[in-house]
Amino acid sequence: MSTGKGAGTTTGTTTGTSTGTRAGKAAGEGPVTVLGLGAMGGALAGALVDAGYATTVWNRSPGKADGLVARGAHGAATAEEAVRSGGPVVVCLLDHASVHEVLDPLAGDLAGRPVVNVTTTSPAQSRELAAWAAAHGVAYLDGGVMAVPAMIGHPGASVLYSGSPAVFEEHRALLERWGDASWFGEDAGLASLYDLALLAGMYVMFAGFLHGAAMVAPAGVTAAEFARRAAPWLTAMTAGFAGFAEVVDGGDYTVPGQQSLEFSDLGDILAAGAEQGVADDAVAMVQRLIGRQIDAGHGKEGFARIFESIRNPA
Amino acid sequence: MSTGKGAGTTTGTTTGTSTGTRAGKAAGEGPVTVLGLGAMGGALAGALVDAGYATTVWNRSPGKADGLVARGAHGAATAEEAVRSGGPVVVCLLDHASVHEVLDPLAGDLAGRPVVNVTTTSPAQSRELAAWAAAHGVAYLDGGVMAVPAMIGHPGASVLYSGSPAVFEEHRALLERWGDASWFGEDAGLASLYDLALLAGMYVMFAGFLHGAAMVAPAGVTAAEFARRAAPWLTAMTAGFAGFAEVVDGGDYTVPGQQSLEFSDLGDILAAGAEQGVADDAVAMVQRLIGRQIDAGHGKEGFARIFESIRNPA
Repeated sequence: MSTGKGAGTTTGTTTGTSTGTRAGKAAGEGPVTVLGLGAMGGALAGALVDAGYATTVWNRSPGKADGLVARGAHGAATAEEAVRSGGPVVVCLLDHASVHEVLDPLAGDLAGRPVVNVTTTSPAQSRELAAWAAAHGVAYLDGGVMAVPAMIGHPGASVLYSGSPAVFEEHRALLERWGDASWFGEDAGLASLYDLALLAGMYVMFAGFLHGAAMVAPAGVTAAEFARRAAPWLTAMTAGFAGFAEVVDGGDYTVPGQQSLEFSDLGDILAAGAEQGVADDAVAMVQRLIGRQIDAGHGKEGFARIFESIRNPA
Repeated sequence: MSTGKGAGTTTGTTTGTSTGTRAGKAAGEGPVTVLGLGAMGGALAGALVDAGYATTVWNRSPGKADGLVARGAHGAATAEEAVRSGGPVVVCLLDHASVHEVLDPLAGDLAGRPVVNVTTTSPAQSRELAAWAAAHGVAYLDGGVMAVPAMIGHPGASVLYSGSPAVFEEHRALLERWGDASWFGEDAGLASLYDLALLAGMYVMFAGFLHGAAMVAPAGVTAAEFARRAAPWLTAMTAGFAGFAEVVDGGDYTVPGQQSLEFSDLGDILAAGAEQGVADDAVAMVQRLIGRQIDAGHGKEGFARIFESIRNPA
């Protein structure tokens, strides 16, 4: 499930993969229930209503359903009533505990039903919910939303799924109403893990950008000016990921053509940062990952080997 | 000057700004000297030869000039002979010390001449060379190459300059033979600082990507598969830099619409990483920058405030 942490940034953009979002109404769109009508739940329900699904909605605190009902949704007084209207049950609540609070009393009603849970949970919590679902005969699909609510149903939105392949395949048309839909595997924790790994990369990149901006700031360069150059520069540098990945997957960090760890010494960047009076955290972090591999005798091998510093901490 | 650290990566791409590279030969292209014919110096000289400049080349160890001479360059036996052929002097040597070693004995010959130094040096070293040049009546322009040698003269190559605006303007056509040419200011250290700041962002982003890849690896996701999703994701997220920059430049981290520092707590990403057994360095670094601002009472303010953790270390 999504942490939602990517959602509140000022970026308002998302994964950039092809969007499978469908426009217009299709025939034979059966019933669906949405439990939880916060900003994201409301957006998910709204996209289904707009696509012509017979959508039943419920929220613990009242009032959240009014706008959706005005658009054609059926408002249920209780979660129990909501799930009785049939079809898949979409769950978008506050956290792992609130999912159990709402679903536990409904276990009997949900037996044999597909549940698509996009509530923010950790991989371990997603797996726990999948186990709970399996124990109650519920078909469980876990989703991580890589989008802000306003993007749902529009190009650029993406949702990562894992868990039941049958639920994903059977309801793929519905899921694609929200955005690009990808299924990663039967491990229900995988979508959440993938989501968190992408968010990790994002936060680390943001810190790197702000580090660079802080380095040039004392020279009178505005952050806006640095951003205009840093955004295309880092975009171009993402082209290097595939090369690093090839080396990592191959497991041979000695293949020719790589920049060596020794050549990647960041001493000059650290020295320039110190001259500018900036904190060294971001660059020192990379230098530390490099240093661990050099200390282990791999200085002549490729930069991608810092993967081993991360995968196998000392 | 460039550290060259971006140059040896497996990426082979660069800044992504518009390229000012000129094709074909133009009229009236005067003499130019290139001192230092390593991989980068040789590429810079080759682009000038190909563009029809009367190019004189020199390298301390012999043999490096042969290919260029075969293409039409004039090979000089000594650096002194090389600079006597007139025009601007391009310097691309090993490091700061080697620049002094080669140029100090030529100070008399260089008086009144433009020197474009693209040797890898720190901002402080670039400023020292500019002061040395000023003391000897030499017009000094410092350059940082954001490209691998193979890209010189081709789209995507970019060189950052600072120092003498007169040298930059007068020889702009020549500089654009190498790639997009930007001048940042009279401070000779600025190009180098900018270069290092962009490289800092790149290395930190690479670490973030490899951190994400390490998180999903235990779940059987290959680095190549993660790269295929992470590259467009992080590319899309660079769109957020401008928003962060606007807040940083405005200096008001309380403007509405930002994701707060409190909401940006990375505890769930750290927990998932710990479950996967990966080192926490990269994400813990960002969490530390966030934590410093929360501890200082700014938890309700925007994420971009981590800039202050970097600019003003505790």
